[in-house]
Amino acid sequence: MAERRGRLHPAVARTREAVRLGLADLPRGTTVLVACSGGADSLALAAATAFEAPKLGLRAGAVIVDHGLQADSAHVAAVAAEQCRSLGLDPVEVRAVEVGTNGGPEGAARTARYDALRDAADAFGADVVLLAHTRDDQAETVLLGLARGSGARSLAGMASVAGLLRRPLLEVPRAATAAACIASGLRPWHDPHNDDPQYRRVRVRHEVLPVIEEALGPGVTEALARTAGLLRADADALDALAADLAETAVRRTEEDVVCDIGMLAAEPQAIRTRALRQAALEAGCQATDLTAGHVAAVDALITDWRGQRWIDLPQAVRAIRRGGFIHLARGVSG
Amino acid sequence: MAERRGRLHPAVARTREAVRLGLADLPRGTTVLVACSGGADSLALAAATAFEAPKLGLRAGAVIVDHGLQADSAHVAAVAAEQCRSLGLDPVEVRAVEVGTNGGPEGAARTARYDALRDAADAFGADVVLLAHTRDDQAETVLLGLARGSGARSLAGMASVAGLLRRPLLEVPRAATAAACIASGLRPWHDPHNDDPQYRRVRVRHEVLPVIEEALGPGVTEALARTAGLLRADADALDALAADLAETAVRRTEEDVVCDIGMLAAEPQAIRTRALRQAALEAGCQATDLTAGHVAAVDALITDWRGQRWIDLPQAVRAIRRGGFIHLARGVSG
Repeated sequence: MAERRGRLHPAVARTREAVRLGLADLPRGTTVLVACSGGADSLALAAATAFEAPKLGLRAGAVIVDHGLQADSAHVAAVAAEQCRSLGLDPVEVRAVEVGTNGGPEGAARTARYDALRDAADAFGADVVLLAHTRDDQAETVLLGLARGSGARSLAGMASVAGLLRRPLLEVPRAATAAACIASGLRPWHDPHNDDPQYRRVRVRHEVLPVIEEALGPGVTEALARTAGLLRADADALDALAADLAETAVRRTEEDVVCDIGMLAAEPQAIRTRALRQAALEAGCQATDLTAGHVAAVDALITDWRGQRWIDLPQAVRAIRRGGFIHLARGVSG
Repeated sequence: MAERRGRLHPAVARTREAVRLGLADLPRGTTVLVACSGGADSLALAAATAFEAPKLGLRAGAVIVDHGLQADSAHVAAVAAEQCRSLGLDPVEVRAVEVGTNGGPEGAARTARYDALRDAADAFGADVVLLAHTRDDQAETVLLGLARGSGARSLAGMASVAGLLRRPLLEVPRAATAAACIASGLRPWHDPHNDDPQYRRVRVRHEVLPVIEEALGPGVTEALARTAGLLRADADALDALAADLAETAVRRTEEDVVCDIGMLAAEPQAIRTRALRQAALEAGCQATDLTAGHVAAVDALITDWRGQRWIDLPQAVRAIRRGGFIHLARGVSG
């Protein structure tokens, strides 16, 4: 149906092209697995992959994760698997997982899902797992990151390639995946969680983005996704430069982590503060607890030194300036 | 009244502290001018400056720009000037300007205002002009920049120090300036433009930010302002590194601008693309027309070379790869 009367539907063409570009560098004979929920995005991804993979000499299967969170989840998974098989994907497997409670409902489901995807890739000898996140998902991720206020990395959205995972639809709008499903005669499942306003992402999708588009004009979703890509490149470059700096200016001793103030002071703030953050993590701070404000306070020991006594950081790590060095250590008593 | 019954109102204390920190590095005897519209933000700034400047050995005056855009603008300016004088500021002057049409109504008013502030600073021998932008203004600026999608610089908001200009209230919430005016018995003018939804900034203030706060929780305004500061530091560092790179990898000849592909390819994308952008501007592209997409297309001549014929850029600049170099020139005929 995608090619009924000889004309290829533009949405089908767009998803196929995105998948083709996203897989073009893989060696022939590679196995790729589509992570399919049965929703429109991943069903469109499954269809495009089933079409493009053989032409690139790739073997394409699918894995459907049954989170067991809804009464009919086994049925939804079976329908999705059946559609993947009818598209010609092989192997196709349903994996049932148990969702824990760590990291909130969204976080726990994500952890269980990604673990299952990795297991399935191992089992089938797959080098790549394809995720169906779209440009709209990316824009929502940027807005969720904005509310954290922790800099470029939190606005950098999702990576198009991250280890085993690839996201070939990251520049394709959600409207195109929905249209591609209709044009291809696929029957996507509508996840009721996608309308449940208890989730922050759902509120961003249905409440925030429409208001921003209304106020600032259409194209905001695209601009947000483009911003993510640019800031990801910035964060990658600055993280690499900070790692180089830490290599020479930060060293680990038996008792503490020691930062050379002279070397750090010569570097721009964006690189210096990233190296200091790295030092604090090495000293025992946890990434989720260490804020930009903490790092700024440590940085002030360098750039705004007025004899501050010490800076208390998460996990009882304390930063003290002594002579030309900042010492970071856990559980030092006052 | 600010200190009625011996207790200093917290909002007054907060604006004063922000002004004190923002002026602390100035040499004694410096003249600073408050740019005052008569609105709550700039009236609170005027009051805090009148209180703090003498203690720092500074001379503090005010300039009120009358844009002539509203029927009662001369009266509003005169009332603002009178309040500035009663606060003890000296000199206080009203400057009437003619607002052109270039850059839209907001842009043209801003250009006329900044020109008048610079002239006033010249006339009074002032080294510093203080602007009353608050944390809320900063958050709005970030959201307006998001819609452009052109990277860190467009999300970096306003600088706390930029040449002559300083913005000491950039971390103070708007609610504090309003409260400080009430506590100090000042009568701020309410600019009707601040409620006119024809302005994008007004729509962001009254429509977008409240919805984001509702969806993502309070603290979003603060997070946006913090994001601006972090991304400004990132953009500063990367711009400086790109300028260093361009120094060696980009050279200007009589006919064109030539970029060394080997040198550029060795650098991370965030630095390489900034150097390429710089080269395109040198070749004659205008900053306002040159998008991230244009620069990415030129970058693909390096990172994804498949024999592309050339890349057309704004202002009839064309980028061509020849051998180990990219040549950028204006008006090359196909």
